[in-house]
Amino acid sequence: MIETPYLLFLGDAPDMLAAKVAIGIRDWRPDHAVGQLRLEGCGADLGLTDMTLTEAREAGAKTVVIGVANRGGVISQEWKKVLIMALEEGFDLASGLHNLLRDEPDLKAVAEATGRKLHDVRVPSVKYPIADGKKRRGKRCLAVGTDCSVGKMYTAMAMEGVMRERGMKATFRATGQTGILITGDGVPLDAVVADFMAGSIEWLTPDNDDDHWDLIEGQGSLFHVSYSGVTMALIHGGQPDALILCHEPTREHMRGLPDYTPPTLQALRDTALPLARIANPACEAVGISINTQHMSEADAKAYLEKVEAEMGLPATDPYRFGSEKLVDALAAM
Amino acid sequence: MIETPYLLFLGDAPDMLAAKVAIGIRDWRPDHAVGQLRLEGCGADLGLTDMTLTEAREAGAKTVVIGVANRGGVISQEWKKVLIMALEEGFDLASGLHNLLRDEPDLKAVAEATGRKLHDVRVPSVKYPIADGKKRRGKRCLAVGTDCSVGKMYTAMAMEGVMRERGMKATFRATGQTGILITGDGVPLDAVVADFMAGSIEWLTPDNDDDHWDLIEGQGSLFHVSYSGVTMALIHGGQPDALILCHEPTREHMRGLPDYTPPTLQALRDTALPLARIANPACEAVGISINTQHMSEADAKAYLEKVEAEMGLPATDPYRFGSEKLVDALAAM
Repeated sequence: MIETPYLLFLGDAPDMLAAKVAIGIRDWRPDHAVGQLRLEGCGADLGLTDMTLTEAREAGAKTVVIGVANRGGVISQEWKKVLIMALEEGFDLASGLHNLLRDEPDLKAVAEATGRKLHDVRVPSVKYPIADGKKRRGKRCLAVGTDCSVGKMYTAMAMEGVMRERGMKATFRATGQTGILITGDGVPLDAVVADFMAGSIEWLTPDNDDDHWDLIEGQGSLFHVSYSGVTMALIHGGQPDALILCHEPTREHMRGLPDYTPPTLQALRDTALPLARIANPACEAVGISINTQHMSEADAKAYLEKVEAEMGLPATDPYRFGSEKLVDALAAM
Repeated sequence: MIETPYLLFLGDAPDMLAAKVAIGIRDWRPDHAVGQLRLEGCGADLGLTDMTLTEAREAGAKTVVIGVANRGGVISQEWKKVLIMALEEGFDLASGLHNLLRDEPDLKAVAEATGRKLHDVRVPSVKYPIADGKKRRGKRCLAVGTDCSVGKMYTAMAMEGVMRERGMKATFRATGQTGILITGDGVPLDAVVADFMAGSIEWLTPDNDDDHWDLIEGQGSLFHVSYSGVTMALIHGGQPDALILCHEPTREHMRGLPDYTPPTLQALRDTALPLARIANPACEAVGISINTQHMSEADAKAYLEKVEAEMGLPATDPYRFGSEKLVDALAAM
């Protein structure tokens, strides 16, 4: 568990695209973001207060989160100067970079000397159990996609926001690096050893109140041959009561797989639902989340209407039109 | 790659059950087994020549394989005395034990000093790629099961044997510890990190002659919620042309999961085949392997007849009645 709130380190990010993690934290957990720290030449700006380390400490920040991708696979000396100073001033560090903080001898030595923590969220910090498949109390919703990167994390986050506004009990459960940094906790599923994948998701979504919903971040796709095993483990470990079907209609081939055509929403439902019912016979597909970013507003609305009619399920783009319909569907279960 | 042939170390195995790995090597790769080494009190006997380390070296053995489970999760001093002597006499060591050889400081030090190899087949020794899903030359057959431990490895091994007798090009591809020790090579799939599972199977079954068959060892089951992600990765990484459906008809619940009923063979076919066709649209279910060990011969034969009629596919128990029917089905493709 990463201590909050955060100071968001943007380093020398060339542009906003490089600051994806920091943007996610600002958008989804604004209470966690007390300020931003930018180095000379930084081209990103979150619109948060620029702070020194000392100012951030005074504002209550506990952890410096690296909210930006690094360049060329190295953690530069410019970055390290700030990160070491942060450890010395009493901050923990958290990072989703491929280069692990713990693999940098200087950072590791200073963290040990100062008693601070280095959180590398790309690698598991827990010894997960093997899944036992036992029915757990509480309810669970999983976003499954026709492909990778179609908006599964965004959908679950948006639903959690609306549910909390309505006073429903809801917890977003992160299964990827960005989600873990945003919420401070979760399972980096793509880095878990095969035998423990489903068990890690059981661990992430334990017994809870009968009216509590876990909103589990999806990963990969049953139709994406590189990552389908990860998706399968999420479906069986997560034991979902409800599936949200996620789709990006303009994609011509599966992400990174030019020879593979994305499936239809019907094919996704007909494949995912019987598999989900192995672990939870009561599971239903309850709603559809469409990523319409490459469509005009008129086209997007027409497409959503068509999908609703064809699939008999509520459909929305949660980013563009809100996730209320999807939450209504959960509330009606 | 583990150097062959082997001297099979049986240690102080209390009985034959503990010597499963050694039995597998003797049965499936008799040319690899030059002899056995037993300690005082050993209750297992493979019927091979008892040899000292020196005799085994003279007989050409290159590697001492620990063919037996250890007790209580420790590698005893009695074992180590022999293992260290083996390293000093020029043998490599190979083991599928949960305790890794490399984690024993004395074994590690002697191996380094003598320049010998410690093969721990429970952990991957290769940095596997992420799967790219590209069509590979050659043919592949995968055994999929209604449950774990229904005879998938045995089925693939038996088919390889018959195919080689017939002069067909066939290679058993091990995906578990026992299979790796038997054949000297393979992928310990349950220990591979999630993102690389499918890629490890692509790596294991590369381009080959058009008339060559890889017989891929199955793992887990799509219906076993603890391990279904591993099975899914095998199906998509393996890109099989042919599936063999494996079943044990007397099992009352899924292995280790008392609340889960095993599926029918129909359900297995109807679940596995559409998923396999995502990676290989030409995939077919071509035969059925039934583990009849808990049935009388008359019951077994009646059951196989019934299954053949119901499923419209050849069915056999490869251990009891041979795997010829399954090989005929592959040859007819």
